[in-house]
Amino acid sequence: MAFDLSPLLNPESVAIIGVSKNVSRIGGRLFKYITKHDYRGSLSLVNPKYEELKGVKCYPSISDIPTPIDCALIAVPEKNVIPVLSECADNNVRTAVVFSSGFAEMGSDGEKKQRKIKELAKTNKLRICGPNCIGLINFNTHTVLSFSQLLEIDTLIPGNIGFISQSGALGGSLVNRGQDMNIGLSYFISSGNEADLDVSDFIKYLVLYDQKTKVIAALIEGFKDGPKFVEAAELALKHRKPIIVLKIGETEAGKKAAASHTGSLAGSDSVIDALFNQKGIIRVHNYDELFQTASLFSKGRIPKGNRVGILTSSGGGGVIMADYYTKLGLKVPEPSQETKELASKEISTFGQVSNPFDLTGQIFSDPEMFKRCMKLFMGDKNFDIIQVNVSMVAGQSSEKRGQYLLESVRGSSKPVVTWWAAGSLSEPGIKILSDSDIAFFRSPERCAIAVKSLVKYYQLLETAKDSTESCYDADYSISLDSAKNILDAGDTCLSEHQSKALLKLYGIPVTRENVAKSPHEAISFAEEVGFPVVLKIDSPDITHKSEARAIRLGVNSEEEILQCYEEIIENAEKYDPKARINGVLVQEMIHGGTEVIVGMSQDPQFGPTIAFGLGGIFVEVLKDISLRVAPLTKSDAELMVRETKGYQILRGLRGKNRSDIEAVVDVLIKISRLAVDWKDYISEIDINPLIVFNKGQGIKALDALVVLKRPGKD
Amino acid sequence: MAFDLSPLLNPESVAIIGVSKNVSRIGGRLFKYITKHDYRGSLSLVNPKYEELKGVKCYPSISDIPTPIDCALIAVPEKNVIPVLSECADNNVRTAVVFSSGFAEMGSDGEKKQRKIKELAKTNKLRICGPNCIGLINFNTHTVLSFSQLLEIDTLIPGNIGFISQSGALGGSLVNRGQDMNIGLSYFISSGNEADLDVSDFIKYLVLYDQKTKVIAALIEGFKDGPKFVEAAELALKHRKPIIVLKIGETEAGKKAAASHTGSLAGSDSVIDALFNQKGIIRVHNYDELFQTASLFSKGRIPKGNRVGILTSSGGGGVIMADYYTKLGLKVPEPSQETKELASKEISTFGQVSNPFDLTGQIFSDPEMFKRCMKLFMGDKNFDIIQVNVSMVAGQSSEKRGQYLLESVRGSSKPVVTWWAAGSLSEPGIKILSDSDIAFFRSPERCAIAVKSLVKYYQLLETAKDSTESCYDADYSISLDSAKNILDAGDTCLSEHQSKALLKLYGIPVTRENVAKSPHEAISFAEEVGFPVVLKIDSPDITHKSEARAIRLGVNSEEEILQCYEEIIENAEKYDPKARINGVLVQEMIHGGTEVIVGMSQDPQFGPTIAFGLGGIFVEVLKDISLRVAPLTKSDAELMVRETKGYQILRGLRGKNRSDIEAVVDVLIKISRLAVDWKDYISEIDINPLIVFNKGQGIKALDALVVLKRPGKD
Repeated sequence: MAFDLSPLLNPESVAIIGVSKNVSRIGGRLFKYITKHDYRGSLSLVNPKYEELKGVKCYPSISDIPTPIDCALIAVPEKNVIPVLSECADNNVRTAVVFSSGFAEMGSDGEKKQRKIKELAKTNKLRICGPNCIGLINFNTHTVLSFSQLLEIDTLIPGNIGFISQSGALGGSLVNRGQDMNIGLSYFISSGNEADLDVSDFIKYLVLYDQKTKVIAALIEGFKDGPKFVEAAELALKHRKPIIVLKIGETEAGKKAAASHTGSLAGSDSVIDALFNQKGIIRVHNYDELFQTASLFSKGRIPKGNRVGILTSSGGGGVIMADYYTKLGLKVPEPSQETKELASKEISTFGQVSNPFDLTGQIFSDPEMFKRCMKLFMGDKNFDIIQVNVSMVAGQSSEKRGQYLLESVRGSSKPVVTWWAAGSLSEPGIKILSDSDIAFFRSPERCAIAVKSLVKYYQLLETAKDSTESCYDADYSISLDSAKNILDAGDTCLSEHQSKALLKLYGIPVTRENVAKSPHEAISFAEEVGFPVVLKIDSPDITHKSEARAIRLGVNSEEEILQCYEEIIENAEKYDPKARINGVLVQEMIHGGTEVIVGMSQDPQFGPTIAFGLGGIFVEVLKDISLRVAPLTKSDAELMVRETKGYQILRGLRGKNRSDIEAVVDVLIKISRLAVDWKDYISEIDINPLIVFNKGQGIKALDALVVLKRPGKD
Repeated sequence: MAFDLSPLLNPESVAIIGVSKNVSRIGGRLFKYITKHDYRGSLSLVNPKYEELKGVKCYPSISDIPTPIDCALIAVPEKNVIPVLSECADNNVRTAVVFSSGFAEMGSDGEKKQRKIKELAKTNKLRICGPNCIGLINFNTHTVLSFSQLLEIDTLIPGNIGFISQSGALGGSLVNRGQDMNIGLSYFISSGNEADLDVSDFIKYLVLYDQKTKVIAALIEGFKDGPKFVEAAELALKHRKPIIVLKIGETEAGKKAAASHTGSLAGSDSVIDALFNQKGIIRVHNYDELFQTASLFSKGRIPKGNRVGILTSSGGGGVIMADYYTKLGLKVPEPSQETKELASKEISTFGQVSNPFDLTGQIFSDPEMFKRCMKLFMGDKNFDIIQVNVSMVAGQSSEKRGQYLLESVRGSSKPVVTWWAAGSLSEPGIKILSDSDIAFFRSPERCAIAVKSLVKYYQLLETAKDSTESCYDADYSISLDSAKNILDAGDTCLSEHQSKALLKLYGIPVTRENVAKSPHEAISFAEEVGFPVVLKIDSPDITHKSEARAIRLGVNSEEEILQCYEEIIENAEKYDPKARINGVLVQEMIHGGTEVIVGMSQDPQFGPTIAFGLGGIFVEVLKDISLRVAPLTKSDAELMVRETKGYQILRGLRGKNRSDIEAVVDVLIKISRLAVDWKDYISEIDINPLIVFNKGQGIKALDALVVLKRPGKD
């Protein structure tokens, strides 16, 4: 076992350090709630002020406790936290929860103190949750190690959703709401400032070692360690435990002035979106969706496709759900002929068997008819998921509806989701479903979004099975030595020609070109590549060649070369007198094709990130760019091309030719490999433009820029 | 008074026709609920089977009732509805509610029956609600004329929101939810199939004559009469009674094959969006938002701007709200210097005075500090709206927070909205706010969207004050006779030249051009407009000139004209041998400028609708088009240009020239006038492309197509 968090999440013995009589203090509330909710292990108290509290013995210090302690709850002022933790370590306490605030959330002074907690944890094998957290709850064992006012509730509903929250107050609030809706949890863990244990540690533990937890929900403000989170996500995907995340706050990345164009467009929040898509993490965008989506996943019914059959007792409700599903890209197909025939016998002339299937007011005069129609829909091979709308039913009528629902889903494994349109009057019906594997929603929108996430997750699991081919599976060999030579020759940036040389090593097609040191040499190169040619300055210091007026297109004769060569050199020298000039790049002139942009930038959290988009207004006006975190699999690269709006152009608009999309995918995979191989050397790559020709005719990089990491700077 | 609905909405005497002992029947439930909720007027029952029911006398027929009846509730089988309504009319019953189903919802047979109800209402001055409705409730007078199971609730909470719903079951469900959240109503009206009275009638009545109703909420499936709804919306805007609408179902318009390009893009749902924007109707897109948004409007506090100050007791909650507001285009500015100084004395070193202002855990040890900080925010001139987040507070703590909220908003008229993050544990606090003018939300997203709607509505009222200039205020005169001559000359479409002649009459600049009847004439016209020229077939029957290969660009000499002229005629004749050919259009060749498209199509519900978009990928790939229902005001036209993504191009991208946006606005207003003047003659107009030159240099229609209405066809 990599690490064992059971002394923290399921401790056999707990000590409250800094316990208090006063329930308005953390130490007081911890004591109140742990006893209120019947902690079944051994509880010790530590406070030199008391002999005992409510019959429980109180020790002057942790070293006075005669028995071993699995978990110490530390509710002492910030200045005493480190000494208390040291004492815990000395007395072989295995884990600790630090509730005290006054650490990293306070700025640099607090950060220093927090680093001490981290060091203490490392050197002593004491695993620590917090500081500045509200603690944790194990719902299955009634272990309450938290001071949240949430614990004013009378009973805790256990379940199979493990919930980890960086925000204590919001986390507690969400648990209250979830429990109101009878959504049971395995754990609530408030991870606080994460000096030692972070979200990724908890995810890994719940994925690998906790049998009770089938689904993980997380409220995340930021990632301490990107690669560790990626690892946790990959583990969860492998073990098929879905992670549902509400990521709040848009991070500050993209702020540093990026030398390249695509780099500046890659905001970190879009990187998180991209990463979540890649790794099968379900991102919810609204507070209310986190638990409701997790609850649907926790039901364990797996959709085989994306076709939804809708049974409704209100015409309008059917329209609402059909609209949502259609907008979200799911299908609402007609029922099978068999269903149509059988169901039409059920309904009077008032209704029509269609999808949505409106049972009309008839359902009130013949309530059992619902059950019979439901069974027909459950058995219909045209549907993968069954949606049931329940509108204004009150009291016993709602109970009966709930009962019929339970009866009619037996024997089938199709997911069944219900939307209850009314309020408190329908509570009795909803209650009947609470322990079942039928999901229930109050909001039709949240319902449809959750179903969409469920379908998407299981589709990803399917594709992931087939496509694991990554950028390292390509059957070409790369001379890493040659690449290193090129990189070592540069300091801040590589020149265009050097950048292209590097791309070429990785198998990315570039323009035929050469750097001329004299007009004479330029003429001879031009004859090699063939007129007309493009002339550009080649310098690692001049990245904006147009701005420097150091570029000439369509140069068509020896005379023009003679004239342009000098002009280019002069303009470059005027633009930046200190620039190092390698010479003038003589490059073949390319006609036709579609301009795309491929880029790489280093995300501060997740490392090399690949960007793709169409040139022109797609990038400039529409910011139409797709991202993935390297390394890419082939299906990552395919999806990132397909998800841009510009894809419609590549696919061939209105009878125009299809572009060589396969060549684009190939470049993305190769650039991903380049980015990973040299992630400590390269901070940005920009291929702009990359020209895509018609299908089968390949691709060519017209311009490229590699920005290097400067030692000690990145 | 235009029409008086008080006998329906506040009847002094009611008769239930078809009353029943059996509460599973409509007639039984109507009787159960009207008595359960203490109807204070006089109640008569009609059913020949009974002498009396629960002590209320039962008459054999309506004509036997000795006293006058304001409202008859008709719960008889469909086949008896018309006879009963006739009897009501004969006995001077003033209004009726028809609950029975079996009418227009059943297809064409039912439609015929429904038309009889309509005629009966018209000829007898009997105003009818329904059929196929669940009735209505007047919350202020406890008048319950409905059989919805909603009425199982014990008490009805009155308020100032009038709610009209075309869907009975969803309407009742929403009322149950609203009442659960202590949202009071003035009326719930289920309008059903709307044989006589429709949503617009009820809106007009509530706007003009009902003092209790300050805000109107509506759940709409479709519009019976578009112009009548527009009229109702204009009345409501004028009287400052906001209308909040949940419009469900995407209608079927845009299906008919549109001859023109823009026509085919104008789906009816986008027209509804456009109309709502024009007329200040607040459209909510989610079931849950309807009542919550209406509730915020009903509080009556009016924002003076769009700057939100956020007070939060959870850091994460502050981030969530700031994210939402920023994404929705509202401002979250820093507090004033004064607030910063005063508030910084309130908080310990743990917090920072900023926006959002996080009161941290300190709020638990010093609860009154919330009140003091709240007062500072209320008084801060940097904020127009105050957002308060309440996270995990339970029981008494939540009550105290509610109390402090009430105390701290007194004396200020700024809107105050609260988001309560927790669930049932915070109920006591929310309850304290229920009668106040502080709005409360469960969902942060719904909260932010509602605030955005509030700000948008009052901004529109402000702009509407200044900009009423419409397409009829322009200071140019139009020869309607000349226009009619052009239109009368056509049958299905006008030719390009005729279409442009019509545009020219309305002051829209078109290319210099003329129709040549011979190659010789073409040469002479070309000399007039100047070489190079464009040659095109001019025919009302050939609308796809490129497809017919009947267009030549850049024709530069007499010889070319001689050659092209014959080719164009030949190709046109080959393409459509029956086409009537006016000749060959000789047109000046235009260089430069930006291509836009202006169109008009007839929406089946709302009539002439103007469309605008940029040419190329903006329309083709991105469907980036804006719409407005004619007639347009100047500010309508300005907004419709500004709301397209393509606007960024017109405004001048990255140092490029700004286009003549004023000229575009001018064309939109003129086309709007043309569309309204000839709405019975023209079904579509397509100006594609319309070339916009640099600012100050105007605009020119390069191609145009006017499609005519064929008598008896549209």
